[in-house]
Amino acid sequence: MALSEFDLIDRYFRSSGAARADVRLGVGDDAALLECPAGMTLVAAVDTLVDGVHFPHGCRPESVGHRALAVNLSDLAAMGARPAWALLALTLPSAEVPWLEGFSAAFSALALRHGVALVGGDTTQGPLAVSVTLLGWLPAGGALRRSGAAPGDALFVSGTPGDAAAGLALEQGRLAAEAAREFLRERFLFPEPRVALGERLRGYASACIDVSDGLLADALKLARASGCGVELEAARLPLSAPLRALGAARARDFALTGGDDYELCFTVPVERLAQLQAELPSELWGYTRIGTVCVETGAHVRDERGVKTVAAPGYDHFTAP
Amino acid sequence: MALSEFDLIDRYFRSSGAARADVRLGVGDDAALLECPAGMTLVAAVDTLVDGVHFPHGCRPESVGHRALAVNLSDLAAMGARPAWALLALTLPSAEVPWLEGFSAAFSALALRHGVALVGGDTTQGPLAVSVTLLGWLPAGGALRRSGAAPGDALFVSGTPGDAAAGLALEQGRLAAEAAREFLRERFLFPEPRVALGERLRGYASACIDVSDGLLADALKLARASGCGVELEAARLPLSAPLRALGAARARDFALTGGDDYELCFTVPVERLAQLQAELPSELWGYTRIGTVCVETGAHVRDERGVKTVAAPGYDHFTAP
Repeated sequence: MALSEFDLIDRYFRSSGAARADVRLGVGDDAALLECPAGMTLVAAVDTLVDGVHFPHGCRPESVGHRALAVNLSDLAAMGARPAWALLALTLPSAEVPWLEGFSAAFSALALRHGVALVGGDTTQGPLAVSVTLLGWLPAGGALRRSGAAPGDALFVSGTPGDAAAGLALEQGRLAAEAAREFLRERFLFPEPRVALGERLRGYASACIDVSDGLLADALKLARASGCGVELEAARLPLSAPLRALGAARARDFALTGGDDYELCFTVPVERLAQLQAELPSELWGYTRIGTVCVETGAHVRDERGVKTVAAPGYDHFTAP
Repeated sequence: MALSEFDLIDRYFRSSGAARADVRLGVGDDAALLECPAGMTLVAAVDTLVDGVHFPHGCRPESVGHRALAVNLSDLAAMGARPAWALLALTLPSAEVPWLEGFSAAFSALALRHGVALVGGDTTQGPLAVSVTLLGWLPAGGALRRSGAAPGDALFVSGTPGDAAAGLALEQGRLAAEAAREFLRERFLFPEPRVALGERLRGYASACIDVSDGLLADALKLARASGCGVELEAARLPLSAPLRALGAARARDFALTGGDDYELCFTVPVERLAQLQAELPSELWGYTRIGTVCVETGAHVRDERGVKTVAAPGYDHFTAP
């Protein structure tokens, strides 16, 4: 199957995602031309997924296409931004039609749901990797940063962390759990970035980060950027029923140190808590208080046996064994 | 050598390129925050370089760092845009200090020369590949597109095309030419994107494209986007002395079909030619008229033996043998 680079782009990527009136020139020239809203701050993030590193070799193309955009949507959600435009750098060993159809359909479907237009990209031959740059907007001064938390603030997480890591373990045969298999695998393969929640948290959250490397690791990054610590209560961790079915210790371990959740971890000053609950009821928006920001640096996990402190947990691409 | 992802970013990429007042938040959070100039159009491009595809395996890290940004600067130059901000997605087999030092120093030096700030990125483990997203600005309506050429317009190219392709052939041992070896190799390893020329061509050029896949291939893309053809006169091709030293036929072949030049190919309406020469003297700005836009589609090369027409020449990642 000889599909030229031009045909490939034309067939799968020329009109992907939402049609936006602010795109003056999209895919097909040397660069995209985009009209910016007045008085807003541009938000930009890039994330790469590498075959065999960020997804298992042979992973379904629909999941690769979905996740490549989802991880970037999650970055913008963590800033409280509204996504607008994506650029896609796709490196492929060869141009396989079924793979491209699955990848591009899932990418486009997620882009459409979030109002994102694919405006440019580059397709190259090489080992499978996908790098997406996502651009979006924020009212000036409205960003949720990692660095705004203060001791006393309440600590929250959205969704049910740990599901995706358990799903990956199932996918890779490191874990056996027939009953909950499909639910947990879907949570790894098709994460739902919390874009709407991130936008609505502007004005409430003092700090925010997306959970990609594991809840404990990312909460610690937020704490470090804010110059303080976080105390998590293990009993408050929102665990899904399928995760709990794996056993209490294992479920807690996945929730604290598993990665690929793409949930939001955020802090809210106590004086804002009542209004947060009134405006964004936690039971509707799916977030849970899991602890408190504290003075003592580090991430401190309190359970029935006491407090355990971790200083630098989580996955690191270049020092992981 | 265990260098964590955090240390790696902190040491090599936290303050890379120019310091710009419009960067509200750069490397280190979930996304960058950028202030946009009023009344301007945002320009965005992404390009990926893959080890063994876009540069020879074992290529000097200084060249990889330089070219990763240069190819994107060239895309923005082709639109007539002024570059501002870059995002870097770097995939590395391992974090080797000498490689990172060479790569980051060359990337930063080129960014600094063009006033570009590195504002975000992602470092991942995997087969060596570099994907850069470059953002810049244009006055609204000022873009140089591929599609504006009309029959009768003069056709130009900047610099001396073919040098880089000959340099790559030397680098790979496919060509022997001791005398000119260093000049031609440098032209492949460290191309100089024509950013200043691209900006100055606004108001003169009816269409513009950067020459990355070979002059003939890219001139043909411009012609197709404009719904016409191009006629090139082989005798007018600006060949460097080191390229000419390889022999007339070989030099012409490199100039017409070699890639990696990162020069600009552009068209100018004849009524603008006198003012172009007055404002941007060709001998100072380094561009040469090589032909004319014509009605008949295709790229037609005229030499002493007649006219040869090509319909779809050049390098294609997915159909090249």
